[in-house]
Amino acid sequence: MAYFDNAATSFPKPNKVYDSIMKAMKEYGANPGRSGHKLALKLGREIFKTRELLADLFNIKDPMNLIFTFNGTQSLNIGIKGILKKGDHVITTSMEHNSVLRPIKAMEKEGVEVSIIKGDPVGRINPKDIEKKIRKNTKLIAITHISNMTGTIMPIEEIGRIARAKGIYFLVDAAQSAGVYQIDVERMNIDILAFPGHKSLLGPQGTGGLYIREGLEVKELYQGGTGSTSYELEQPDMLPDRYESGTLNGPGIVGLGAGVEYILKRGMDNIRKHEEELTSHFIEELTKIESVKLYGPLDLKEQGAVVSINIGDKDSSEISFILDQNYDIEVRPGLHCAPMAHKTIGTLEQGTVRFSFGPFNTHEEIELAIKAVREISKEL
Amino acid sequence: MAYFDNAATSFPKPNKVYDSIMKAMKEYGANPGRSGHKLALKLGREIFKTRELLADLFNIKDPMNLIFTFNGTQSLNIGIKGILKKGDHVITTSMEHNSVLRPIKAMEKEGVEVSIIKGDPVGRINPKDIEKKIRKNTKLIAITHISNMTGTIMPIEEIGRIARAKGIYFLVDAAQSAGVYQIDVERMNIDILAFPGHKSLLGPQGTGGLYIREGLEVKELYQGGTGSTSYELEQPDMLPDRYESGTLNGPGIVGLGAGVEYILKRGMDNIRKHEEELTSHFIEELTKIESVKLYGPLDLKEQGAVVSINIGDKDSSEISFILDQNYDIEVRPGLHCAPMAHKTIGTLEQGTVRFSFGPFNTHEEIELAIKAVREISKEL
Repeated sequence: MAYFDNAATSFPKPNKVYDSIMKAMKEYGANPGRSGHKLALKLGREIFKTRELLADLFNIKDPMNLIFTFNGTQSLNIGIKGILKKGDHVITTSMEHNSVLRPIKAMEKEGVEVSIIKGDPVGRINPKDIEKKIRKNTKLIAITHISNMTGTIMPIEEIGRIARAKGIYFLVDAAQSAGVYQIDVERMNIDILAFPGHKSLLGPQGTGGLYIREGLEVKELYQGGTGSTSYELEQPDMLPDRYESGTLNGPGIVGLGAGVEYILKRGMDNIRKHEEELTSHFIEELTKIESVKLYGPLDLKEQGAVVSINIGDKDSSEISFILDQNYDIEVRPGLHCAPMAHKTIGTLEQGTVRFSFGPFNTHEEIELAIKAVREISKEL
Repeated sequence: MAYFDNAATSFPKPNKVYDSIMKAMKEYGANPGRSGHKLALKLGREIFKTRELLADLFNIKDPMNLIFTFNGTQSLNIGIKGILKKGDHVITTSMEHNSVLRPIKAMEKEGVEVSIIKGDPVGRINPKDIEKKIRKNTKLIAITHISNMTGTIMPIEEIGRIARAKGIYFLVDAAQSAGVYQIDVERMNIDILAFPGHKSLLGPQGTGGLYIREGLEVKELYQGGTGSTSYELEQPDMLPDRYESGTLNGPGIVGLGAGVEYILKRGMDNIRKHEEELTSHFIEELTKIESVKLYGPLDLKEQGAVVSINIGDKDSSEISFILDQNYDIEVRPGLHCAPMAHKTIGTLEQGTVRFSFGPFNTHEEIELAIKAVREISKEL
């Protein structure tokens, strides 16, 4: 089997991830919370270790500004809805996932003004287009680092400079980049960084994270027991407690830490280089097949390990079904929860067949995929 | 080691829970979402199986009304904040956890009126006190099934009858009961049932659930990709999608299903009977120790497997520390995130030492605990 759905969730995970989750569950699967006994303290320490690892990875000064959530969508909702108020203006792009667009659309109903910058036909966003839309009440610029549909890498460093110069908060959705591409919240002027734990960071499902710059007022989305100031009926102000109500996914976070350790050991640059090699060879060979249409920049400087294609005018679901049934190749068809991105590149009806590569994909698997696409395109 | 912190999270889990999580992660750890390939479909089916198991357990007619969240706190926040609007009145009790009280306090700031019914000195709530507080604008009654601090079992069936008769929505926090005590949303007139997956349901951390009665309008707390109506920028209305944005904790939910299967196989009544035997013996023996003060009804008809105690006027943290260090007994000290409950029973300063028992605790462990408390109370 060849699994090319890593943009949805990475599979498999490093063995260390499986092992560390089991060890946490079986040996110290307690509830950290306040003070507590040996097992609770042990899990609390391990959770903090993951917090530190992620803070290091993204150059976050204080690990306490790194909040654990349960998926990237929750991180984005806290970041977006916690900062925008009636009368504020937010700038985002047509290349966003619904996890950015839907919360913003919900805020629009509550009186937030919204500007959506349209990408070019390969999904690129021009920072100047963002700059032009800035108004007096612009509070936030929210953009994905890498499109989950075309793989387009966005110029976030340049956009971050614009945001900082204008005193506007800058939110980056790192769903497709965290763990493979360099993210430095200081250098890139990122105020809010949202990411899932189960994609390129190689952690398990049920994990996610959110960085909130020190001093930035972001309202929490839900309240509850935090194990801190338990005598108070009001949610505590301190980080990360304010945003971490209720029991965390303790063993999951331990597994996420093991995922980050795997990345650090193998080297993020090495992983990216490996994925780039697979991607560029795949693009190169598919470009030669006449009936195959490829989307995105198709240039590794501007595209991550996500390649969306179509074969002729066939429905993307049909192609994906054939790949699965006849070749044991697992891809994702359809709209990829990014309707405006499809409108941008003109695939709102057909959808796309998305191949997304991960650190455990091999050159042999890529050859198998190329052969399969070649055969299908001949038959159809 | 004797682990008596099951009210925080059950430990250990049945072996089947560990095994099924690993199998899901290693063999089909894909992302269900929309349509999809073999692995995604397999995980989707397994998640639905857990949905059906839980629906059966709580007598929920349609499994699609059972929503997966990531902990009990998130379930409670959706249930409470999704239903209350400015001008509404909510009735709750002094025995609630902060996961109920803090969201309600946050809503109070937004113009929701709040009545808090005080428990008696052993934590009991009189349904008549609730009935007296009902006003024209009372929209919701929110109450825990079993206090996480005194173990007091609340008369939810009677309160449910009152709520239904008056046309008021009835929310039950089943954090300490789901999986051990009978919960029938039909018979008990429960409109919203919130529960964690990692306590008595024996699933892993990072799982929780929420039942919302058919036709009840509850606003979702966050929006995002749902894998359904991906072409729409608005959150879909259908259940469970509306409340399940982003990637679920797939393998965790599979593990939760295995937990429920364990309960069904061993028999929920058998588990409860086992816990009742441990609890009643523990209470009986501790009552004989002069300096020990026990809280709660101390009658198994009115108390779950949670026993809060103090020894003399010693700080609860000190006692818990001694139990951990000298006896390898893991309990939880302090306020248990339920400040008003402590005020109700008069332990806001001292806190309590909480013993909470689970299906894997043994009579030998209880004897060890009794012996330890006896020794400590002599020494102090």
